[in-house]
Amino acid sequence: MGTQGVSTLASKAPEARNQHRLHARLANGAPIEAVSISRRRNPSIRHLVRPWGTMPSPPAFDEGFRERLRTLLIWRRDVRRFRPDPLPPGAVERLIELAALAPSVGLSQPWRFVVVDDAVCRGAVRRNFAAANAAALAAQAPERVAQYAQLKLAGLDEAPCHLAVFADRATAQGHGLGRHTMPEMIDYSTVAAVHTLWLAARAEGIGMGWLSILDPREITAILDVPAEWKLIGYFCLGYPIEEDDVPLLETAGWEEQRAAPSFLIHR
Amino acid sequence: MGTQGVSTLASKAPEARNQHRLHARLANGAPIEAVSISRRRNPSIRHLVRPWGTMPSPPAFDEGFRERLRTLLIWRRDVRRFRPDPLPPGAVERLIELAALAPSVGLSQPWRFVVVDDAVCRGAVRRNFAAANAAALAAQAPERVAQYAQLKLAGLDEAPCHLAVFADRATAQGHGLGRHTMPEMIDYSTVAAVHTLWLAARAEGIGMGWLSILDPREITAILDVPAEWKLIGYFCLGYPIEEDDVPLLETAGWEEQRAAPSFLIHR
Repeated sequence: MGTQGVSTLASKAPEARNQHRLHARLANGAPIEAVSISRRRNPSIRHLVRPWGTMPSPPAFDEGFRERLRTLLIWRRDVRRFRPDPLPPGAVERLIELAALAPSVGLSQPWRFVVVDDAVCRGAVRRNFAAANAAALAAQAPERVAQYAQLKLAGLDEAPCHLAVFADRATAQGHGLGRHTMPEMIDYSTVAAVHTLWLAARAEGIGMGWLSILDPREITAILDVPAEWKLIGYFCLGYPIEEDDVPLLETAGWEEQRAAPSFLIHR
Repeated sequence: MGTQGVSTLASKAPEARNQHRLHARLANGAPIEAVSISRRRNPSIRHLVRPWGTMPSPPAFDEGFRERLRTLLIWRRDVRRFRPDPLPPGAVERLIELAALAPSVGLSQPWRFVVVDDAVCRGAVRRNFAAANAAALAAQAPERVAQYAQLKLAGLDEAPCHLAVFADRATAQGHGLGRHTMPEMIDYSTVAAVHTLWLAARAEGIGMGWLSILDPREITAILDVPAEWKLIGYFCLGYPIEEDDVPLLETAGWEEQRAAPSFLIHR
């Protein structure tokens, strides 16, 4: 990538950073992801140092936005009943672009997205779910077996879009920062990307369902991805048949939401 | 809790659910969390079945909201430099209420939030970080040691609010649904709550930083919480000294963001 459109400025001492911050957006509007850091790592090239005032001001979010965000959180659902309509062209790519803005340990961006269209793969995933679900049913407490059997736990047959998400624990990106004592931070970062994608999808009217009733290792084999990729979840996406602000498992009488104060203690 | 204000309706056959949906908000505006599911589990009591049209309509999110949501995602940062100003009274409780709307496996809501104010606890956490960070520094590749040592990786000294978040793998809530083959879904659900809290905080102008350079078992002991609670992260919250749309680790030259298409494959 060339440096056309990138404003230049003489090198600044570190203490001048409050006035002259490094900024990673090209003047021509190219996204930050497209900027090679090598130019900034090399102190002889300071194309990306911009004078204060030429970079975008921090946004202020008002009460109206916060109220809409709360509404989004309340109406985000784990969707299991989908209309067969396909997603618009480019929708998945757009959602993944937003997901890649999620926080990640050491800026490792360990998320790996696999869009599954192949009918043979989908069939194998469906059989894997059926077997895992039968085992889970058999493990239920006797008084819950009948209720469990009635739950609809996946939209694999109807959802137009199947998405498997993995965490790449072997990634060199991030240089190991922040995962010396907690290597599972790679998985957690990927979950943050999944949740970002979920919210962005709902904001477009697209529903998503998270399927965890699967054998993770077998899914890795079915999709022929590297063995170091850990399955975080298998997701169905599509337009929901119904919208609700109450979790399906609550309306089905499986479980109830508890009040937030019950999750909070002080030390 | 009484049933005043709850609309009642005769029992409906399951196929009538599209017209008459179960709804978990009391007419007097009490939050869904306050509704006891027992009345819905018991088929003789159908207080919560409401005629179609009396429940809130699904929200439609427009392009303006999606653009603001994208801005929020872009400007959410892992904050490590805080102003000393305390958070407003009730802010943490308000953020945790939103976090509790996050998706959770089997509606298990396994998140456990510990607000840490005690000076002795804070001191022990600070020492734990210092030891873990020294070990992480020693494990760096030789060419990265100097750069690692210059990074500011925690805001423990300045942040007015310390929050430890744990996942309760022993919770009975959710009745084990969805975690037979993937028990780690309890951890993932907690991460979704953390990410929800992070976005909600940023929408209020509050910054958050995620600390994972800690010994998780020792933090559990320091805070005297049940041994089955798994530490997901230790968080600093407060008003940030600076705002940016570029990750700190990118401006510091540690790592660069990659473009979203590099994370996507097809099967």
